[in-house]
Amino acid sequence: MTALQQKDDTKQSPLDRLQGDMAADMKAVNAMILNHMQSEVPLIPHLASYLIAAGGKRIRPLLTLASTSLFDGDMTRAHRLAACVEFIHTATLLHDDVVDNSDQRRGKESANIVFGNEASVLVGDFLFSRAFQLMVTDGSLDVLRILSTASAVIAEGEVLQLSVQNNLDTTLEDYLKVIEGKTASLFAAACEVGPVIANQNTQSIEAMREYGLYLGIAFQIVDDVLDYNANRAKLGKTVGDDFREGKMTAPVILALQQATSEEQKFWQRTLGNKDQKEGDLETALELMTKYDTLNQGMDLARKYGEKAIQSLQKVPTSPLRNTLENLVSFTIERDH
Amino acid sequence: MTALQQKDDTKQSPLDRLQGDMAADMKAVNAMILNHMQSEVPLIPHLASYLIAAGGKRIRPLLTLASTSLFDGDMTRAHRLAACVEFIHTATLLHDDVVDNSDQRRGKESANIVFGNEASVLVGDFLFSRAFQLMVTDGSLDVLRILSTASAVIAEGEVLQLSVQNNLDTTLEDYLKVIEGKTASLFAAACEVGPVIANQNTQSIEAMREYGLYLGIAFQIVDDVLDYNANRAKLGKTVGDDFREGKMTAPVILALQQATSEEQKFWQRTLGNKDQKEGDLETALELMTKYDTLNQGMDLARKYGEKAIQSLQKVPTSPLRNTLENLVSFTIERDH
Repeated sequence: MTALQQKDDTKQSPLDRLQGDMAADMKAVNAMILNHMQSEVPLIPHLASYLIAAGGKRIRPLLTLASTSLFDGDMTRAHRLAACVEFIHTATLLHDDVVDNSDQRRGKESANIVFGNEASVLVGDFLFSRAFQLMVTDGSLDVLRILSTASAVIAEGEVLQLSVQNNLDTTLEDYLKVIEGKTASLFAAACEVGPVIANQNTQSIEAMREYGLYLGIAFQIVDDVLDYNANRAKLGKTVGDDFREGKMTAPVILALQQATSEEQKFWQRTLGNKDQKEGDLETALELMTKYDTLNQGMDLARKYGEKAIQSLQKVPTSPLRNTLENLVSFTIERDH
Repeated sequence: MTALQQKDDTKQSPLDRLQGDMAADMKAVNAMILNHMQSEVPLIPHLASYLIAAGGKRIRPLLTLASTSLFDGDMTRAHRLAACVEFIHTATLLHDDVVDNSDQRRGKESANIVFGNEASVLVGDFLFSRAFQLMVTDGSLDVLRILSTASAVIAEGEVLQLSVQNNLDTTLEDYLKVIEGKTASLFAAACEVGPVIANQNTQSIEAMREYGLYLGIAFQIVDDVLDYNANRAKLGKTVGDDFREGKMTAPVILALQQATSEEQKFWQRTLGNKDQKEGDLETALELMTKYDTLNQGMDLARKYGEKAIQSLQKVPTSPLRNTLENLVSFTIERDH
C-alpha cells in the first residue's frame, strides 16, 4: 500500500486538521491581511475584501504556517509572511480574472465584473506592492529573494500560458512548465519560507521547497482535470471553461496525442481556430473518455503527489509532517 | 529674478546636459535593463523591448543616477537601481494603458493594442517582480522599503484617480493627492535612492526626496495642462484625451470652480455623464480660456517647481546640482 492509498480513518480531512492545528495562527494571519489591505483610498479595501472575504481554502498561507511550525520557527514572523503569500496569490487572482475575462470566482461574480477590469488590475498591483512592503518589515533578504523570484516565475508561467493558448502544438512538457510557473512556484515558495526563517539547513529548505513544488503541480493538474468533470455542475461550477478559452491542459493535450486525423480537425477548429458551436464541449468530453485522458491526467497528478511525499521524508517525522503527507492525497482526490 | 526665470544661455537643455553628463552610466543602465528583461518566454522580452525601445526621456533613472553621483555614491549600484526604477515605471505604463484603454504611447501604437491587454498586464507583473529581484541582489533593505512603498503609493494614486474619474466633486486637493501618488512618488523614490546608497544623513535624503516629489508634481500638472494644448496636435499627439476619459485634472477642476450653472450642466453632461458629442472638446477649451485655467495650472506647476528648487538648496552646491535645478524650469516650460 503506497502512502497515497492510505486512508485517513478519522472523519476530519487533512485540510480540516491542518486548519484546526493552525486555527490560532490563521486568525492572526487574517487579522494581518485585514490590517494591511487598508488604505486611504476606500476602493482598495472594498475590492480586496470582496475577494478575500469570499474565502477560498487559504492553502498557501497554511503551508507557510505549517512549514514554519514544523521546524519550531518564529510564528509571529510566519503570520506576516503567510499574509504576504496570500496577498501575492490574491493579486494574481485579480489579474488572472482580467486576463481570462472570467465572470466567476469562489462562487461569486468575480471582482472584474463587479468593480471593472481597471480596478482589478490596480488593486492587484497594490496588494502585490503591499506584500513586498510587509516582507521588508520582516527584514529577511532570503525571504525577499524567494518571493520576488516566485512572483517573476508566476508571471512567466502566465505569459507562457497565454503564448500557447489555442496552439495545438503545445506539448505536455510546455504544459508542465506553465503550471510549474503559474501555480507550483508559489506553493514552493510558501513552503520554503518556513525552514528559511527557522534557520534550517539547505537540505530541509530544499526538501520543503520540493514538497510545495510537487504538491502545487499535482494541485493544478487536478484543477485542470476537474474543469472537465461533469460532477462539477452539481457544485454550481461551470464545466469546460478551459475548453472555451482554448487553454491547452493535460486532458486536451493527451487526447490530441492520440487523435485521428478527423479528431485533429475537430480540435483545430474548436481550440486552434476558436470556432466553437453547441455540442462541441460534449464531443470534446467524449474524446477524453475515448482515450481515458481524465484518468491519465489524474495518474500524472498522483505521480507528482508521490514526489511531494518523497520530498517530505527528508524532514524529521512529526504529527504535522503526517498531516502534510495526508494533505497530498486529499488535494488529489478532492472532487472540487 | 527667481531661479525659475533664469535662462540657460547655452543651446543645450538641462535634460540634454544631464543625459550627456550621465551618458556612460545611462549606457550601463540600458544594458542592465536589456539583460534583466530577458526570459525563457519570448513574449516577455518581445513586448518589454517594444515599449522600452520606443524611448521616452528616461527621466526617472536619470534622477537616480544624478542623485547618486551628487553624493559620490557607488555608480555600479546606481545602475542597477536606476534599472529597477525604470522597470517599475514601465510596468505602470503597461498597466495604465490597459486601464485607460489607450492606443498610443511614445508615438507608437501602445503595447495593449499590439499585444493585447492580457499580455500587457502579465508582462507588467513580470517587470515589477524583476525590479524587486534586482533590488534584492543589491541587498539594501532601505532601498527595498523606499521602492516597495513607492509602488504601493503609485497603485493607490491610480485607484484614487479611477475613483474620482467622472466625479465633478473632485477637489484640487484630491487631484494633487492623485498625482502625488501616481507620478511624484516614483520621482521622489528615484531621487531618494541616491543619497541612501551614498550613506548620506537624513537631511540630504529628505531634501532629495522632496526635490523629486515636487518635481514630479510639477511634471504631472504640466502633462495635464499640455493635454489641452492645441500646439500638441502639431507634434502628432492627440488633444483632449483626459477630457474624453473624464479625468479630473487641474484645468477642468479650476474651470468648474468658477462655472456658471449653465457651464456646470455642460461639465456634468460631458464629464459626469460621459455623454460627449462633436464640438464638446472645443467648448471645454473655450471655458478653460475664459477662466484662464491652463495658465493657472502652469502657475500651480511653477509653485511646486519653486519648492523643488528650495529643497535642492539643502544639499551641497555643485555643477550637477545646478543642472538638477535647471531641470525644474525645463520640465515646466517644455511644450510636449
